[in-house]
Amino acid sequence: MTELVYLDHAATTPVDPRVVEAMLPFFERRWGNPSSVYALGRGAKRALDDARDSMAEVLACKPNELVFTSCGTESDNLAIKGVAFARAARGKHLITSKIEHHAVLHTCEWLQKHFGFEVTYLEVDRQGLVDLGQLEAALRDDTVLVSIMYANNEIGTIEPLAEIARLVKGKRQDIVLHTDAVQAGGVLPLEVDRLGVDLLSLSGHKFYAPKGVGLLYARRGTPLLPQQQGGGQERGLRAGTENVPYIVGMAAALRLAYEEREARCAHMARLRDRLIEEISHSIPGSHLTGHPTQRLPNNASFVFEGADGESILLNLDQHGIAASSGSACSSGSLEISHVLRALRLRPELAQGSLRLSTGVKTTDVHVDHALAVLPGVVERVRARTPALGGRRA
Amino acid sequence: MTELVYLDHAATTPVDPRVVEAMLPFFERRWGNPSSVYALGRGAKRALDDARDSMAEVLACKPNELVFTSCGTESDNLAIKGVAFARAARGKHLITSKIEHHAVLHTCEWLQKHFGFEVTYLEVDRQGLVDLGQLEAALRDDTVLVSIMYANNEIGTIEPLAEIARLVKGKRQDIVLHTDAVQAGGVLPLEVDRLGVDLLSLSGHKFYAPKGVGLLYARRGTPLLPQQQGGGQERGLRAGTENVPYIVGMAAALRLAYEEREARCAHMARLRDRLIEEISHSIPGSHLTGHPTQRLPNNASFVFEGADGESILLNLDQHGIAASSGSACSSGSLEISHVLRALRLRPELAQGSLRLSTGVKTTDVHVDHALAVLPGVVERVRARTPALGGRRA
Repeated sequence: MTELVYLDHAATTPVDPRVVEAMLPFFERRWGNPSSVYALGRGAKRALDDARDSMAEVLACKPNELVFTSCGTESDNLAIKGVAFARAARGKHLITSKIEHHAVLHTCEWLQKHFGFEVTYLEVDRQGLVDLGQLEAALRDDTVLVSIMYANNEIGTIEPLAEIARLVKGKRQDIVLHTDAVQAGGVLPLEVDRLGVDLLSLSGHKFYAPKGVGLLYARRGTPLLPQQQGGGQERGLRAGTENVPYIVGMAAALRLAYEEREARCAHMARLRDRLIEEISHSIPGSHLTGHPTQRLPNNASFVFEGADGESILLNLDQHGIAASSGSACSSGSLEISHVLRALRLRPELAQGSLRLSTGVKTTDVHVDHALAVLPGVVERVRARTPALGGRRA
Repeated sequence: MTELVYLDHAATTPVDPRVVEAMLPFFERRWGNPSSVYALGRGAKRALDDARDSMAEVLACKPNELVFTSCGTESDNLAIKGVAFARAARGKHLITSKIEHHAVLHTCEWLQKHFGFEVTYLEVDRQGLVDLGQLEAALRDDTVLVSIMYANNEIGTIEPLAEIARLVKGKRQDIVLHTDAVQAGGVLPLEVDRLGVDLLSLSGHKFYAPKGVGLLYARRGTPLLPQQQGGGQERGLRAGTENVPYIVGMAAALRLAYEEREARCAHMARLRDRLIEEISHSIPGSHLTGHPTQRLPNNASFVFEGADGESILLNLDQHGIAASSGSACSSGSLEISHVLRALRLRPELAQGSLRLSTGVKTTDVHVDHALAVLPGVVERVRARTPALGGRRA
């Protein structure tokens, strides 16, 4: 097969041609600085306002509760540091889970190491669900923030946010609840009141907008010390000249994702289910990771006994298949991912991880190709890594 | 004149068509995540490496001394907070000037207000040059950072960075010197060793790349606490999936700017000189602001006695001329800019400020139009604002 079989949509997505179309006028024709008073500037400002209105509709919030950022990582940083620093006089205890994205975990660790915050990292069960009993027990008088992801980027498990919100707000109304919804954006519902969150992070490049633009929803009244100082952009919450083309593009992409959500999700889930069923059936010693039903519609993640994940990826690449062993952000590292560690998998299992994630342009032909190639790849990799207990072919 | 006369290139520039061309493949065809191991990801990584090499040539530094950011404001924030937090145990005194961009000033104020740093704000003379005697006197044993801009964004004055570097490093080698070179990028030399700086901020959209991408040069060994946590991108200095298209575009734009610098600057300076000479001659009560010779080649900034700057702008806009009263970032505000205040202009002068900034596509016809329109506009505005001492027509 000469065409690329891209099964790593969880890492990043191509930009939708309609999104490129929406962005293009803002490079050469409508290039004004939104802070400028003349017509060209006001036009750019209007484009920002329209983008904000459009995204607010999807989140069912007020437009002025949205802050445009440069990526999901920045959104997570602003949310967590913003609340931590704003509420430090009230308390310095934060709660998160062991399977968060590094944008959350490393931010919490930074606050611990350099600014004296205390962080509780909640356990998850073997399917990746956060331990709600442990959450309840962890809530303290000096807890100021709880940050739990909407859906896990490696194993696809969807966390019960509404229940988490009830627990947190039941303890004390002023504990802020943040969710990293980066992996959920474009596929799961985002109405913030239903989710019960105060802060929610999104990243454009997970839903067919470009890499380099993100969003933070911040419920009115949420205490937030801005983390980037300068001009008064984003109502003082995020200084810096606005990336007008990408913001327009992100709004277009989000609108398209939610207009087409039902069809997209049905399509991606059908192909995901083919992957899950046929791989589980055809490859002995394969195990689905994550929750069997409460999972992202486009995520098929596995571990293969006695195989090395990195070698599987390189072999798939040789066959024109793009996939990942977990998150793109930590690839290159040979360590077992913190997510798989939190699932308490045996190490010889956890090293053979593979994430296949479908997208709107994925076809049955792509899936056929992956299914045709993968069993042989796993077998060959196992044969070469007997140290991991691989059986020889 | 039906064509837009854009004389606000200091606020932002249109994206060069060649830059758009360079970026386009990375949206729909080469969309890989640079952290991914497969061919599509490696190709994106290679594009980043090439962009870094290309920019390092212009700055005459090592590629691994460059950090890609989302804008000049982020670069300034990372530089100043990065050093301040990394060196807090050594000392908490920072030095900057009264005419810095808000990305520097408000960052320093944030560190003062929330983290107990002490900041000295240096005076400037009436032409906007930093007081070197005062700088020398301000250097203390607990000074950890000096941040002085390369060229001022409102009045165009170029600061004597090399002399500043000698003073700072003469006091103590480990005091870090940062410069906000955002307004200088694309027009002034950027070789960091000649400038003598440890940290240097750039913003793509000032030199015909898009809004939403920036650069921080960080000399090897400079202490810097990263300000955005997450994946290990940018050698751990700036987490977040890289904005591949814009980084490629910024590198292309910088290369073009420096290949064509002589011709561009000669062109912009000739038109700037026409503006300065003819406005000074034809409009009574007009005064050039900033330094008469040590100034950016594209900046013509004035104050007009007894006129209101905002009204001038709106009138110019009616005539299809885009200009600004100072910096775009603080427009909308009716206060006299902090830069003009630092020049100690009489208030009735400072309120009548106008910045015209030429660009590579500015023509004599554009300048003719501005010169034909401006005297009448200033006269009308003066007639309507007698409170500012305006003379009636």
